[in-house]
Amino acid sequence: MTEQLKRIEAALDRFVPETDALYKNVTDAMRYSLLNGGKRVRAVLTLAFCTLCGGREEMAMPFACAIEMVHAYSLIHDDLPCMDNDDMRRGKPSNHKVFGESYALLAGDGLLTKAFETALSAEAFRVVGPARAAKAAAVLAECAGERGMVGGQCIDLETENRVVPLETLREKDTGKTANLIMAACMMGCIAAGAEDELVEAAKAYALHIGLAFQIRDDILDVTGSAEELGKNIGIDAQNNRCTYVSLLGLEKAQALVDKYTASALTALDAFSGDTAFLRDFAMQLAARSK
Amino acid sequence: MTEQLKRIEAALDRFVPETDALYKNVTDAMRYSLLNGGKRVRAVLTLAFCTLCGGREEMAMPFACAIEMVHAYSLIHDDLPCMDNDDMRRGKPSNHKVFGESYALLAGDGLLTKAFETALSAEAFRVVGPARAAKAAAVLAECAGERGMVGGQCIDLETENRVVPLETLREKDTGKTANLIMAACMMGCIAAGAEDELVEAAKAYALHIGLAFQIRDDILDVTGSAEELGKNIGIDAQNNRCTYVSLLGLEKAQALVDKYTASALTALDAFSGDTAFLRDFAMQLAARSK
Repeated sequence: MTEQLKRIEAALDRFVPETDALYKNVTDAMRYSLLNGGKRVRAVLTLAFCTLCGGREEMAMPFACAIEMVHAYSLIHDDLPCMDNDDMRRGKPSNHKVFGESYALLAGDGLLTKAFETALSAEAFRVVGPARAAKAAAVLAECAGERGMVGGQCIDLETENRVVPLETLREKDTGKTANLIMAACMMGCIAAGAEDELVEAAKAYALHIGLAFQIRDDILDVTGSAEELGKNIGIDAQNNRCTYVSLLGLEKAQALVDKYTASALTALDAFSGDTAFLRDFAMQLAARSK
Repeated sequence: MTEQLKRIEAALDRFVPETDALYKNVTDAMRYSLLNGGKRVRAVLTLAFCTLCGGREEMAMPFACAIEMVHAYSLIHDDLPCMDNDDMRRGKPSNHKVFGESYALLAGDGLLTKAFETALSAEAFRVVGPARAAKAAAVLAECAGERGMVGGQCIDLETENRVVPLETLREKDTGKTANLIMAACMMGCIAAGAEDELVEAAKAYALHIGLAFQIRDDILDVTGSAEELGKNIGIDAQNNRCTYVSLLGLEKAQALVDKYTASALTALDAFSGDTAFLRDFAMQLAARSK
């Protein structure tokens, strides 16, 4: 895995190279948030589904990078003062604390745009052809847009400090969290030229691990250790946030994590290849303590 | 032209429909800035180059809408307090004054994403095929990104309140203004399936009318009538902005407008069809008083 992560980092670096041009500052701001050595969960999923569907890793690399760019942009804009107003991100000052709000806004815009430039790059056209690249980029746009991630952010703003039904919570988390994971998994299949049926199975896997991930997050905010998590706990209760735990209680919330994880594993039955990595991945998410 | 504008407005309305979903607010904010009955200069250019290259208008419509979405997003983000902090846009309150900063940020993000969703939509795939749609969307991403429009915004921030060489001014205006016009014209040719040589000619036309437009803007800030322009004049001098007029004087600045316009007209020689509309368009820009 370490070798694969290195290849992902190298590709990201290649797609957003350093520059001495007059737009150096915005490029630096983009690189600051993109090249931070994260876990690259989404990129790894894109590559895993591509190889599961019989493709080579290099066929999925532009799309793996594109999804990480969309993720990075969403964090930059989410941290801005008019949104969550977060000064820190993964133990480092957030983008606007380093570069200022104007450049952080532009860096987010630049990364979102760069995601599509990358998914539709000469490299993407070379490894999978323009038609397949178009299909993958279309999925990315749908999942990232107002009926996807941006919509989830909107629902989050709408429902702040309100008790909402479980269905609304699910719609918010599907938007905010699951949609990018869905795009990651689906694009891997599309890059490999998989049938629509497999793309749909990857979508189902992703939706369920995405929801399980978010519910587990809510649980850890109550039961987790601040030290292990590397962030403060008890934040949801402090802010009177409506979460799966506040609506269902700890036990039923974990039961829902387990149910969604089971659904994710069932979705993998559609694939004939070796799904061990993706099964482990789902089960580790369900039981994670950090 | 009025009929064509109606078709553009109808298509924009179709691509970002009203909704009662939980993400209604961000959709409303997107529609507020997108469906404002602007002149649709960019969309009209996309359609004009498509028909000039032998395509049908409907082949270029998704791309014409995509470029208007990118334009609308750029204005929303540009008006935000951390950028130009403009309360008004075309005689109406700017997006964040109506919807608040959070929704304005998301509306911009949503429109930028929707531009790619539209250029890679089922409709786009149906009218020109996914390969051609991919090529057009790739041009859009390049022109809108950090080496294009976002880069131009960055250069603008860098050079605020500084006297800069003419070359820097040109690079800023190419980024901020000419790039979207370039994408508009090139995508029209690509939608029609034109040869690369014609796509390049459209790019040259667009670059030169874009630069001429911007210089004419600087001139009108000195010589124009506030009433006719519908905005205050003398703003550049007030803010000590470095412009073509402050660097060259009025006469030489207009000579540059005329030179760029001549270059734009020359670029049209590559096309065998009827270029009368595009010639008139370039000449009207060069002489406009509003």
